Amino acid sequence: LATEAQAAHLAVLTSCLPGEVEVTNGGEPSEDVQVLVSGRPSPESLDALPQLAAVVVPWAGLPAPTRDALFERPHLKVFNLHHNAAATAETALALLLAVAKGTVGLDGAMRKGGWSPRYEPREALQLEGKTALVLGYGEIGKRVARACLGLGMQVNAVKRVARQAFDGDVALYAPSGLPNLWKSSDALLVCLPATAETEGLVGQAALEALREGAIVVNVARGSVVEEEALFRALESGRLFGAGLDVWWHYPKDGEACEPSRFNFAGLPNVVMSPHVGGSVRDTEPARMRALGELVRRILRDDPGLRAVDVALGY
Amino acid sequence: LATEAQAAHLAVLTSCLPGEVEVTNGGEPSEDVQVLVSGRPSPESLDALPQLAAVVVPWAGLPAPTRDALFERPHLKVFNLHHNAAATAETALALLLAVAKGTVGLDGAMRKGGWSPRYEPREALQLEGKTALVLGYGEIGKRVARACLGLGMQVNAVKRVARQAFDGDVALYAPSGLPNLWKSSDALLVCLPATAETEGLVGQAALEALREGAIVVNVARGSVVEEEALFRALESGRLFGAGLDVWWHYPKDGEACEPSRFNFAGLPNVVMSPHVGGSVRDTEPARMRALGELVRRILRDDPGLRAVDVALGY
Repeated sequence: LATEAQAAHLAVLTSCLPGEVEVTNGGEPSEDVQVLVSGRPSPESLDALPQLAAVVVPWAGLPAPTRDALFERPHLKVFNLHHNAAATAETALALLLAVAKGTVGLDGAMRKGGWSPRYEPREALQLEGKTALVLGYGEIGKRVARACLGLGMQVNAVKRVARQAFDGDVALYAPSGLPNLWKSSDALLVCLPATAETEGLVGQAALEALREGAIVVNVARGSVVEEEALFRALESGRLFGAGLDVWWHYPKDGEACEPSRFNFAGLPNVVMSPHVGGSVRDTEPARMRALGELVRRILRDDPGLRAVDVALGY
Repeated sequence: LATEAQAAHLAVLTSCLPGEVEVTNGGEPSEDVQVLVSGRPSPESLDALPQLAAVVVPWAGLPAPTRDALFERPHLKVFNLHHNAAATAETALALLLAVAKGTVGLDGAMRKGGWSPRYEPREALQLEGKTALVLGYGEIGKRVARACLGLGMQVNAVKRVARQAFDGDVALYAPSGLPNLWKSSDALLVCLPATAETEGLVGQAALEALREGAIVVNVARGSVVEEEALFRALESGRLFGAGLDVWWHYPKDGEACEPSRFNFAGLPNVVMSPHVGGSVRDTEPARMRALGELVRRILRDDPGLRAVDVALGY
């Protein structure tokens, strides 16, 4: 079945490409490969392809070994695929709202026949009029910012290089603005790539500076947020809650593992999700269409196409 | 405690009103009452107040007996309080996204240590690029429409009298447009008052006309949607899912009851919520401030203030 599905996906990709482009999948790549689609190519495989000009890592960001291998081979252009930015941004909003409204707990209570939350003091939050801080203003962050505006929130966003003060109603800041921005934030939405600069960026100092009763949402990479600091801030109730799609530990080779050293599943004010934010019903066909479009643009050397800055990692 | 809380709420209300306005709560109202705040005033109580000029029903919409009593007393102006429109609209979005992303099920799986959804084909929906139909374009519907735009959806809205074709990017239609609108809708968000005109408006015909795999959200009143038709459309899988904050049956005098004749709790594609959409942490102070503002405007006969059209019911 997996192979059948793969064949179907390849057919979608092939249909998006000019007839003279040959698509191969798996096995030994032929020597005339110009574009390699691989998230974790070995250094040897990269050196074995004399015609290779570009590598597509078919998601957002570069795994550390891939980044190292590509950093040492600057003749290779590197591209990411952002086909799932909308789905990921929507997951961020789903988590934000589920935390703010207590959606998961209400559903559970009502399925057991419990109307009682209707008659108890409510601990839900209203978002309209509150302030959101969006970390990262790429394909995902822009969408999250726009959706927060749609909820009537004030929106600040941080990007590495903020050349303008506003994008529409979104106020843009460089990372140097963060110490002040934490203090005015009721919701923090992490949409940054995992890089040396972003690792642990949301640490104890940041979490203690956020407004009392703030909500933290992470749909980017676990490592951007300090695990213990977040757990303590949730456990103590200083934060209202958190929505987490990304984690610090992942299963390897199908072996189960806890997502964190800390028992987030024991906290009532967390909404947990197993890193599926970018995935929707028709992810694979969409990914193949986006990949086809990207490869077309690589092959025609489209000057508007942004390559990954390997030193930065995105 | 309840009395202490009540006293605190009354203090907030009093602080919002001019000094010459006397506020009383419960007991026998004095004969010179001009404004009565009551959701379910008896006909006798209305007739016992010779100075009475206005009745505030302190939420959105009129209960049927209240409507009848006020219809027979056209000398009384009637007002609703829309203090919780933002919270209710946010609940609609929370339900829409929780259904689209499977948020409740993912949280449950992951709390049991289950990473497996990460490695299974995903049944989540992407909303960006899809079409939302917002039924009702009052304080709640406008906010829901704006939030759906923020998610990158196309938004159509239906109001009783649509005097213009667009409000910003929201396309407005009169109810006569509904037969065509159902057919192009991926998400239906019910934000209508319960009136004779809206009862059962979303029936079998509407639910069968929606696009395959549509999502239905109701934060208005259960009676606007036909109970059995919705249950069947969810059970058959023709609808992707539904998010329901409002129901067909409510507990009376604290006695438990099922929210529907049908077993919605047995459906995996429903997110349930016990009619708490409009309620947030600081609902009561907000309600008191909004009530104070409304009473000020009633007393100074503000020409911009919209009274309830009792014949229409909102």
